[in-house]
Amino acid sequence: MASRPRLSRRALLGAGGAGVLAGAAGLLAARAGDEPAHADPGVVAFHGPHQAGIATPVQDRLHFAAFDLTTDDPARVAALLRAWTEAAAAMTRGAPVGDGAVDGVPLAPPDDTGEALGLPASRLTLTVGFGPSLFTKLGLEDQRPKALVDLPHFPGDNLDTARSGGDLCVQACADDPQVAVHAVRNLARIGFGTVSVRWSQLGFGKTSSTTPDSQTPRNMMGFKDGTANIPGTDAGLLDAHVWVAAGDGAAWMAGGSYLVARRIRMHIETWDRTSLTEQEQVIGRSKGEGAGPGRSREHDPVILAKMAPDAHVRLAHPDSNAGARLLRRGYSFTDGTDGLGRLDAGLFFLAYQRDVSEGFVKVQSNLRTDRLNEYIQHVGSGVYAIPPGVREGGFWGDTLFAKFA
Amino acid sequence: MASRPRLSRRALLGAGGAGVLAGAAGLLAARAGDEPAHADPGVVAFHGPHQAGIATPVQDRLHFAAFDLTTDDPARVAALLRAWTEAAAAMTRGAPVGDGAVDGVPLAPPDDTGEALGLPASRLTLTVGFGPSLFTKLGLEDQRPKALVDLPHFPGDNLDTARSGGDLCVQACADDPQVAVHAVRNLARIGFGTVSVRWSQLGFGKTSSTTPDSQTPRNMMGFKDGTANIPGTDAGLLDAHVWVAAGDGAAWMAGGSYLVARRIRMHIETWDRTSLTEQEQVIGRSKGEGAGPGRSREHDPVILAKMAPDAHVRLAHPDSNAGARLLRRGYSFTDGTDGLGRLDAGLFFLAYQRDVSEGFVKVQSNLRTDRLNEYIQHVGSGVYAIPPGVREGGFWGDTLFAKFA
Repeated sequence: MASRPRLSRRALLGAGGAGVLAGAAGLLAARAGDEPAHADPGVVAFHGPHQAGIATPVQDRLHFAAFDLTTDDPARVAALLRAWTEAAAAMTRGAPVGDGAVDGVPLAPPDDTGEALGLPASRLTLTVGFGPSLFTKLGLEDQRPKALVDLPHFPGDNLDTARSGGDLCVQACADDPQVAVHAVRNLARIGFGTVSVRWSQLGFGKTSSTTPDSQTPRNMMGFKDGTANIPGTDAGLLDAHVWVAAGDGAAWMAGGSYLVARRIRMHIETWDRTSLTEQEQVIGRSKGEGAGPGRSREHDPVILAKMAPDAHVRLAHPDSNAGARLLRRGYSFTDGTDGLGRLDAGLFFLAYQRDVSEGFVKVQSNLRTDRLNEYIQHVGSGVYAIPPGVREGGFWGDTLFAKFA
Repeated sequence: MASRPRLSRRALLGAGGAGVLAGAAGLLAARAGDEPAHADPGVVAFHGPHQAGIATPVQDRLHFAAFDLTTDDPARVAALLRAWTEAAAAMTRGAPVGDGAVDGVPLAPPDDTGEALGLPASRLTLTVGFGPSLFTKLGLEDQRPKALVDLPHFPGDNLDTARSGGDLCVQACADDPQVAVHAVRNLARIGFGTVSVRWSQLGFGKTSSTTPDSQTPRNMMGFKDGTANIPGTDAGLLDAHVWVAAGDGAAWMAGGSYLVARRIRMHIETWDRTSLTEQEQVIGRSKGEGAGPGRSREHDPVILAKMAPDAHVRLAHPDSNAGARLLRRGYSFTDGTDGLGRLDAGLFFLAYQRDVSEGFVKVQSNLRTDRLNEYIQHVGSGVYAIPPGVREGGFWGDTLFAKFA
């Protein structure tokens, strides 16, 4: 991609005007000049040692999709990952998919579906992962990282297989949902014949922040969520808890991470009829400010001993979990109503970690007595190996798939 | 509401700081000074001759909910509408629901669910409507406007009753989805015991614009949508096509309108494999610029005779429908996937009109030969009488319900 002109969707439309963009033949034919890469603050660099969308400051909106392979041929998967990489590099800099010219092929479908034309890059990031089932389907069991464990059954789990698992996943985050939806849709379109969408989830509002200086967003329970998250700027904590190190096991995963996704339904009608005192005791922080008991400000260190033994913040705290920490970047969702007139709403939990057993499994196991469990239910689940970032000229997952390409 | 202090969620949090908002008792206790009403450009006036959210410049995001009554007592409905009005007036100016003080009642649930605390008003509008079934349930058939007809069955309709109808509807539009979701949720909470949510729909991106000078947004087919919409600033067109006049029939509806909502699923995988030429012929405009055939710019008047006889824009145009026009303010949606690995995505169509028979029914009947029908399917439907705007001291629908209050 590096040799391509860096045209953006906006520049493309702006340069068009009456003449160039008037008819079918002119669509997408305009090219902007030599835009410096990533000079736009709305562009997050696609290439790098780690995939974007993990330590990146959390964008406002999410579209997450899990895919199933319809092939068992690693070469076809390698080709798909290369095509996806090319499209992702374009979309994340605000450019349409394809080479920007459809001249002479009006009888072909457009390379880009078009609904994001004219929209800026909106800090779009695309992050790809591989589920445990991918290794089985492709006969690559020997390459499956030990740190990518199957999640155990946790008490209270009520998982819907139609919203769980998947051979691959794509996390699309952007400040504009139209940009995130456009990206997933175009990857699905490119993948036709190799993958099909297994399930997808729209997140309308970020919860956890990875930028501690900004306002901590609130989840659907009305509480600030992510006060003590791992900052995306803290290289030491990221290396300790998020990025896979060279000596951690599967060599191809160095620089990668592991993602646990959980669709957590909140019983918000019940929660909304719970007293403020009860809500605050369940969480372990005050609702308005987000301060722990005996503290006055959100970012004052919490005193676990002052919380109820079954308070959520207490049980999830690193001090209660031998230091285990997760980088969370979850999103609120609402997907209409269930059959009982209740909003189908909650938290789509996304957490990155260096080792699943030492991360999510450890913390979630400690939450078995969490008082919050009365108000939530885990209804979807996925776990994925997130390969390292893409070098210029490389492709997603090439540390594993290059030999098949 | 007029006599209440106009505290905003932001002012409230800003004034709080360590002391005031530290504990449960202090939550929401702060009050801002005398903020002038609607001085904030993010605040859309709630009171007026017409409900906000119709001629209002279209906001970015939508949460729409249909409710069913669980009572047949008009007095209880009047009380609900009064309570909803009070909450809506607060939320649309960026304030939390309730009187802003929970001092002394930490054992009661908070008046506001809290997830929008700290967020600005975000141009929130809330628009309420009454479905045909409301008049039946409450024994008010004689008050049902003649212009509120039951929609006929249209060829190709595949309506899901679980996503259709409803005794009441609430359209929440805002530039921040968290604000729109918060508003619907709090109205649902206030309505507990009188109404239950029948269905709801999140819209992630606006399609039709009511501000012709701004960039026309694109729908999920990648085409600009709403180029020839009724501008929200054109009083003549609004009076002719959108607002109910005093002599139109049911006197209580003067200043109101009628809303038709249609959940239109797009077969986007099929669309995405259709050639650009075919796409443009189906729609009747170019994809890039949005110009009609033989024209070079989006806003050049279209020449219907140059379009295919079954082109969508041609069949929907006022000249093909005896001058019928609708004010559209629909939104794109995506709700995960269906069971076949396809994105459940499309257009949540919302159109306001002075008379349903002379508006949507006439246009939709003319679309029976629309070539676009091959790529779409109507899967949900609702029609609602939208009462006029609320005067200071009044409440939603008081022209009909005041005698029961």
